[in-house]
Amino acid sequence: MNTIINPPKTDWLKILQRPTQTVEAIEETVNAIFDDVKLNGNDAVKRYTSIFDGVALNDLFVSNEEVIEAEKLVSNDLKAAIQLSKENIFKFHNAQKTKKVLIETTEGVACWQEKRSIQKVGLYIPGGTAPLFSSVLMLAIPAKIAGCREIILATPPNKKGKINPAIIYAAQQCGVTKIIKVGGIQAIAGLTFGTETIPKVYKIFGPGNQYVTVAKQLATKYGVAIDMPAGPSELLVVADETADASFVASDLLSQAEHGTDSQVILVANSMQILNEVAVEIEKQIENLSRKKIASKAIENSKLIYVETKEIALELINEYGPEHFIVCTNDNDFYVSGIENAGSVFIGNYTPESAGDYASGTNHTLPTNGYTKAYSGVNLDSFLKAISFQKISKKGIKNIGSAIEILAEAEGLDAHKNAVTLRLKSLE
Amino acid sequence: MNTIINPPKTDWLKILQRPTQTVEAIEETVNAIFDDVKLNGNDAVKRYTSIFDGVALNDLFVSNEEVIEAEKLVSNDLKAAIQLSKENIFKFHNAQKTKKVLIETTEGVACWQEKRSIQKVGLYIPGGTAPLFSSVLMLAIPAKIAGCREIILATPPNKKGKINPAIIYAAQQCGVTKIIKVGGIQAIAGLTFGTETIPKVYKIFGPGNQYVTVAKQLATKYGVAIDMPAGPSELLVVADETADASFVASDLLSQAEHGTDSQVILVANSMQILNEVAVEIEKQIENLSRKKIASKAIENSKLIYVETKEIALELINEYGPEHFIVCTNDNDFYVSGIENAGSVFIGNYTPESAGDYASGTNHTLPTNGYTKAYSGVNLDSFLKAISFQKISKKGIKNIGSAIEILAEAEGLDAHKNAVTLRLKSLE
Repeated sequence: MNTIINPPKTDWLKILQRPTQTVEAIEETVNAIFDDVKLNGNDAVKRYTSIFDGVALNDLFVSNEEVIEAEKLVSNDLKAAIQLSKENIFKFHNAQKTKKVLIETTEGVACWQEKRSIQKVGLYIPGGTAPLFSSVLMLAIPAKIAGCREIILATPPNKKGKINPAIIYAAQQCGVTKIIKVGGIQAIAGLTFGTETIPKVYKIFGPGNQYVTVAKQLATKYGVAIDMPAGPSELLVVADETADASFVASDLLSQAEHGTDSQVILVANSMQILNEVAVEIEKQIENLSRKKIASKAIENSKLIYVETKEIALELINEYGPEHFIVCTNDNDFYVSGIENAGSVFIGNYTPESAGDYASGTNHTLPTNGYTKAYSGVNLDSFLKAISFQKISKKGIKNIGSAIEILAEAEGLDAHKNAVTLRLKSLE
Repeated sequence: MNTIINPPKTDWLKILQRPTQTVEAIEETVNAIFDDVKLNGNDAVKRYTSIFDGVALNDLFVSNEEVIEAEKLVSNDLKAAIQLSKENIFKFHNAQKTKKVLIETTEGVACWQEKRSIQKVGLYIPGGTAPLFSSVLMLAIPAKIAGCREIILATPPNKKGKINPAIIYAAQQCGVTKIIKVGGIQAIAGLTFGTETIPKVYKIFGPGNQYVTVAKQLATKYGVAIDMPAGPSELLVVADETADASFVASDLLSQAEHGTDSQVILVANSMQILNEVAVEIEKQIENLSRKKIASKAIENSKLIYVETKEIALELINEYGPEHFIVCTNDNDFYVSGIENAGSVFIGNYTPESAGDYASGTNHTLPTNGYTKAYSGVNLDSFLKAISFQKISKKGIKNIGSAIEILAEAEGLDAHKNAVTLRLKSLE
């Protein structure tokens, strides 16, 4: 842990720097696999699945039998927990529905905005040690509320060609249309181009390692949208003497266990809480199953003391944390002043893991400073806003001559003529 | 013009294909200029301005004197037309403001979503023959409503180092913070990295040629968001015998005059209107100042006859036009059924040029099939949605054990522990 006291503003950029990722080396591999999948479809997808996941698949899709089997394998406790989580995520995202925005801008000129769903979406769920079924909930529930017609989930199989039952169960509960047993670059390539059996989608969502991240970036070159660029997960806690040091330490550690490159920062207005948290971290870390990972992340973590809440807020907005926990005697100050953050957790009884699993907010959030320009995944991520306008005879008389003047000033004759013809017909 | 009658569905993909753009050759140039600007700042920016725009600039910014001068140079007619346009754009985008979404997902678990502005945005306005001050209005007005703090406009200077007065005037009217006299790749690079005097921004908006498009794509690699990928402009009109053929022809031509690669498609349920429109196009095109450009685009245009409105709608959604004009005896059918479009124009008196200039809707729209996943620019393009959650003691008791079960099932101990500690403190 690095304790930093009253850093001058000129040092902020350096202190808040994130670990840089180099993707150049990966790009070549990603390009090659994309070209292969584009050309050879399922053959290529199966070949890479054999190489990277160590399993030769006949069928890329999860079968009905596997769905039935998965339901049997998930414990009742887990089913109930998934149900609670699902209900809260549903409620929060369903509340985000917007009505048609309709306005008459000038008499006879009606303009409105309506949202329509993205018809085909791909949800990527990583494999690895932890089966991230919670990400299935976070992506499939809003997709279903939005009315996406095809919701394709891609996740890598294990060496036996199986998918974790909790992932299948969660997908089934949330209305996923199809699950394909494909991971990594070949999954993103398959969803980008489509194959004999994998549908081409219009937008790809979900977390992943560096390969998946670079593949998603490449997908955008082929006209597929993505939720957001991804980076290592991060948490910033602002605390003063009203915070519970053991709670703060547990939150910092819950972020640190994600990966050795996780970012963990404490900003404090009180040296006492800063020191207490440091002690608590040392104590709690001993009992964690992922101690090794967490220790590495904690090594790079920062405990920063600043004198005023105004300085703290400025520094936090400069960083723009993915997760932001506020535990101070003036939480409202931070809540109203925060400009760059993904998800904000307020008070001693709002751990970050609540947002990861069950409060109802989404855990697919911008990292790496992208909070300055990107929203986390929300209902609108699965919708497009379309504009409509309907102009009456009276309406075109009201705005027609302005359009003629503007089009002429831009040197666009035919634009002007489209109005002139209509105005003449009304003389 | 190519007239196509009842094309079989298997041919749709081919018929609706857009001209492909190759960007490989451009990428190298764009990369080199980005590296140079990153390293050498204003020196590099000025050097490329000298090379590409043929002018050596001392000061990259539009001065107060130039603002005052511009106001004198814009005619009163044009000022009044800009004012009308501005008011309508303001009204439509201001109506898009959303309220805080607040919901208690479980007793004691309050979740809400609030929007905060993107603090620093860059607006790119191309140079060339036509001074696109209308794009200034379309981008700066919603940026200002959203509350963006820095709104930086970049546009290339002419050989005398001047910016078109209408662009300066429009920028001034809409609250642009600074205008930089820089265009092309060097402008996007400057906004991406920041220089001694050009501010680094978080999101870049606006149209541009292939160089600018590739530069914007590259900017995303450096953590800057963009409004959307761009392609040549396009229009699809669906019409039957209730449409006015001369109006339809004038709309198709207004799109065709944009560029030789513009896309113009008529879908008709009536051979009569199709033939009438073809005749009208030949007639009207003769008098256009940009006849040469329009003729080239019209050469590649398509007049497609299909038998039913159901087939028409399916084909239109397959294409996903940027601009979509509906002139039939059942406009509601298309309005409710359209899934992929940027902006929709309804009825005989709603020319596309109304949306380009003055109805109030935005003209910065997805092209090239991106309507399937992207919205056009709207108020939300300048905002981020942030999630907040505040959990009471009662709330954590209600959802705590579900979080513990879910975290454990994903193998994330420390996530579980953050909840367990809190639950224990409440026993």
